[in-house]
Amino acid sequence: MHGQVLARHDALVGPHYDRIINQFRAALGAGGVIEDTPSRAAFRDPFAPAGQDWYEPGVVLMPASVEEVQAVLRIANEHKTPIWTSGQGRNNGYGGASPRVSGSLVMSMRRMNRVLEVDPVSATALVEPGVRFFDLHDHLRAHAPHLWMSVPDLGWGSIVGNTLDHGMGYTPYGDHVASQCGMEVVLANGDVLRTGMGGMSNSRAWQVYKRGCGPSFDGLFMQSNYGVVTKMGVWLMPAPQCYMPGWLQLQNDSDLEVLLERLRPLMMDGTIANQPMIINAVCAMSAFTQRDAWYNGAGPMPQAIIDEIARQPMLGAWVMRFALYGDEQVVARQRQIVEDALGSIPGATLSFAKYDGHDLPDFENPHERVQAGIPSIALDQMSRWYGGESGGHVGFSCAMPITGHDGAAIRNLVRNEVNAAGLDYSGVIIVSKRSMIHVGLVVFDTADVEQGQQAYAVSRKLVQTAAQMGYGEYRSHLDFMDLVADQYDFNNHAQRRFSQLIKDAVDPNGILSPGKQGIWPASMRA
Amino acid sequence: MHGQVLARHDALVGPHYDRIINQFRAALGAGGVIEDTPSRAAFRDPFAPAGQDWYEPGVVLMPASVEEVQAVLRIANEHKTPIWTSGQGRNNGYGGASPRVSGSLVMSMRRMNRVLEVDPVSATALVEPGVRFFDLHDHLRAHAPHLWMSVPDLGWGSIVGNTLDHGMGYTPYGDHVASQCGMEVVLANGDVLRTGMGGMSNSRAWQVYKRGCGPSFDGLFMQSNYGVVTKMGVWLMPAPQCYMPGWLQLQNDSDLEVLLERLRPLMMDGTIANQPMIINAVCAMSAFTQRDAWYNGAGPMPQAIIDEIARQPMLGAWVMRFALYGDEQVVARQRQIVEDALGSIPGATLSFAKYDGHDLPDFENPHERVQAGIPSIALDQMSRWYGGESGGHVGFSCAMPITGHDGAAIRNLVRNEVNAAGLDYSGVIIVSKRSMIHVGLVVFDTADVEQGQQAYAVSRKLVQTAAQMGYGEYRSHLDFMDLVADQYDFNNHAQRRFSQLIKDAVDPNGILSPGKQGIWPASMRA
Repeated sequence: MHGQVLARHDALVGPHYDRIINQFRAALGAGGVIEDTPSRAAFRDPFAPAGQDWYEPGVVLMPASVEEVQAVLRIANEHKTPIWTSGQGRNNGYGGASPRVSGSLVMSMRRMNRVLEVDPVSATALVEPGVRFFDLHDHLRAHAPHLWMSVPDLGWGSIVGNTLDHGMGYTPYGDHVASQCGMEVVLANGDVLRTGMGGMSNSRAWQVYKRGCGPSFDGLFMQSNYGVVTKMGVWLMPAPQCYMPGWLQLQNDSDLEVLLERLRPLMMDGTIANQPMIINAVCAMSAFTQRDAWYNGAGPMPQAIIDEIARQPMLGAWVMRFALYGDEQVVARQRQIVEDALGSIPGATLSFAKYDGHDLPDFENPHERVQAGIPSIALDQMSRWYGGESGGHVGFSCAMPITGHDGAAIRNLVRNEVNAAGLDYSGVIIVSKRSMIHVGLVVFDTADVEQGQQAYAVSRKLVQTAAQMGYGEYRSHLDFMDLVADQYDFNNHAQRRFSQLIKDAVDPNGILSPGKQGIWPASMRA
Repeated sequence: MHGQVLARHDALVGPHYDRIINQFRAALGAGGVIEDTPSRAAFRDPFAPAGQDWYEPGVVLMPASVEEVQAVLRIANEHKTPIWTSGQGRNNGYGGASPRVSGSLVMSMRRMNRVLEVDPVSATALVEPGVRFFDLHDHLRAHAPHLWMSVPDLGWGSIVGNTLDHGMGYTPYGDHVASQCGMEVVLANGDVLRTGMGGMSNSRAWQVYKRGCGPSFDGLFMQSNYGVVTKMGVWLMPAPQCYMPGWLQLQNDSDLEVLLERLRPLMMDGTIANQPMIINAVCAMSAFTQRDAWYNGAGPMPQAIIDEIARQPMLGAWVMRFALYGDEQVVARQRQIVEDALGSIPGATLSFAKYDGHDLPDFENPHERVQAGIPSIALDQMSRWYGGESGGHVGFSCAMPITGHDGAAIRNLVRNEVNAAGLDYSGVIIVSKRSMIHVGLVVFDTADVEQGQQAYAVSRKLVQTAAQMGYGEYRSHLDFMDLVADQYDFNNHAQRRFSQLIKDAVDPNGILSPGKQGIWPASMRA
């Protein structure tokens, strides 16, 4: 559909190249413009399959201030040159830092990395988009050790970038969009907007009250290409008296359905306040070993071997990690409730650890770390199931109700299709208060041309089949953004038509991240 | 500033009157077009002060379906006639159903009053905009008695209308914007948009997952004039095992500061999961008696009489209502934590009641009702402090951090100014997880011309003074909408400029609720 824009954007290979680059150098300094191929490679999709003419970053721009962001956009408007923005560019499994339109300028926010403010009383932070989870964590340990943050499994990413892409963490503040409060946005024309109470110059409530007096614009700037977020408020969690991470191991594949039915009420009533993660045996083992430690054959791993993996210590057909937080007596009672509800599943094993929330050890176990808001990168190992260092994955990620019916339906679909493509099924379910995300972690060896093609082909097929069953993606790889948007078909794709209407109003030259989430500016629409 | 549009809109007094009305009659049937003055009076601001040329409704249109809403907008576009939309029109204290531009057509959604769906498993409802809190409550009692809803103090309003205006209730689901999931919106051009997962024709997640795969538009359609919401998803609360409403009475005015400091951690960590309401003695007494039961003099009530009121049973200088919900043992422990934190304030009295959440009595006490999600209209009495049946109020309502410093600052400001205007200070603080709203309930006798003028004059002054202190309104009366928007001054009123940009894109003829929240279409801008 948008094949014509998959060709390299030619602004930077045309006759104006030198003039444009000189303008950027004048605005950002030589250190803010990265042209050499090895340095730019860090902004490619780290899991780009071999043999693909993949989404290639053009020159990389590194503004260090709001004014420099404005300068970049001014130059881009002048030349109608697209700019693809990322925070740290760690959106791995969905394209990393690479742009939808090959050859686009890439604007990385890595140099805008200041924690601007932490309010220890209201427990909020104001951060720039280059601040990594690791950075805020370091800052809090030094300046506000009584406050916890929420982190995803890999802490190297940008807090802002993760939030804008509807990312999740695993403390009770793990719905990152819900824990966001207030933004500063540079619009395509360089104008600076602050959302919510930030609309007042001297507001005392910008980081505590989410809305202003009028429409709320924050949602517009998430998963979109309507502006560049340069500041964002984040809610922090007062350290709980007690932190109790828990593990549940299930013997049988079909126990997943039982678990989801019993888990739903515990999520709705807040007994479990974080976002539990349920993973299958292959996924769980991929945190520890590569595939060839178990099996070297072609095609999907035989069931007997998967069963053997499931029988390893602390593993199961499905394993759930979760945690309880708060007053010690309340947590003790919540543990009892969880034991009654989940521990009684036949064959299930339930175990807990217990820590003083104000005096955490330096956990080695990455699961205990991230559920306490301590960044880790240990689980990056999961991408190495096939091919070791050349291993990769693409995320196929659906939102759905928390029911056994829906859980079984997506598991069966994804497992059948992925196996039919010759790949192992690595399944992750992240459970929130009223919905869950099933991530089919489609793992493959990026160096294996055929396997890469199969991984992407099956993911594309799943997008369409799942949509027919009523399941839409919550996030998507660059390569499927148009396809995913196609599935949002109500009333002749009313969402896409409205997205385009807003796009044309706020970015008439179409310079900001064209194609992001299937939203194209007028000049690039088919 | 917008004086020119305060004049009656002339579309309906001009030569086209009959033709336009006939078009609406053809579209809606005679029963859908209300012209006679007595019937239209029900759509006036119920608290319009005497002697004011106030915001007068023109002809009232009552569509009964999405198609009829589309027909109304088609005719309005043809004639470029403004349409002011309300759900039930019970936005009392902020203008009721009356339009910002006097003489505008008023579109009431009262006939679109169906509860379209209740999902008893995921605990969600899908409602039309005319559904009152009373209606959904009746529906749930009949069809899903295990589910609670959240209600504001007065249950006669529209669930959708209240939510769109950032309204609040008093169960743990009381942040109504946060409990909203999915919308259907008729845009100004008649196109129908569904937000979030509703963008898919057959989504299974429209009411459980708040976002789609792309920008989130729901916030755009709240406190705005960008579209007409025709369906909305609402999250419901599984009945808790135990419901424990509590009361805290404080002896001294300055105890408010102490309370807020001790309450903040209990809000942040979820010990108190609903939205406590803290009211002063005058406000508390206004639920039971009129002012002249205590004092008949002009000017503000003397402190000695306020002190006497505060000494009445169950009252105090400040009184807080709140409630605990959940497992009986958890609630018992939470009660202990609350007793330790708040019961220890010198002179404080703390009391609790306890109910089986699955078998509630038919409470008489409106506070026990609304905190259990049972609608009431008893507290409408509060508007009768001055003047009895002709009593009214205007809400002056700021968002702020939960601190003693901020609570004292706004209390002192509002009390001083309201008293200086000769009026009693009726103060309400509604506390959320990370912010609070101080509502100065500026009560007056609508039949008293001078008092009405004073009430509005002091409210206008407060909007400006509070803004200088960093406190912005979270909601506002028609009469202050422009003034409130003026206070959002960051970067030369970037919020207003952006609001206008979106307005012009989505409603180029400016037909939808011009002036709402200070957002005017291009044709009406000064």
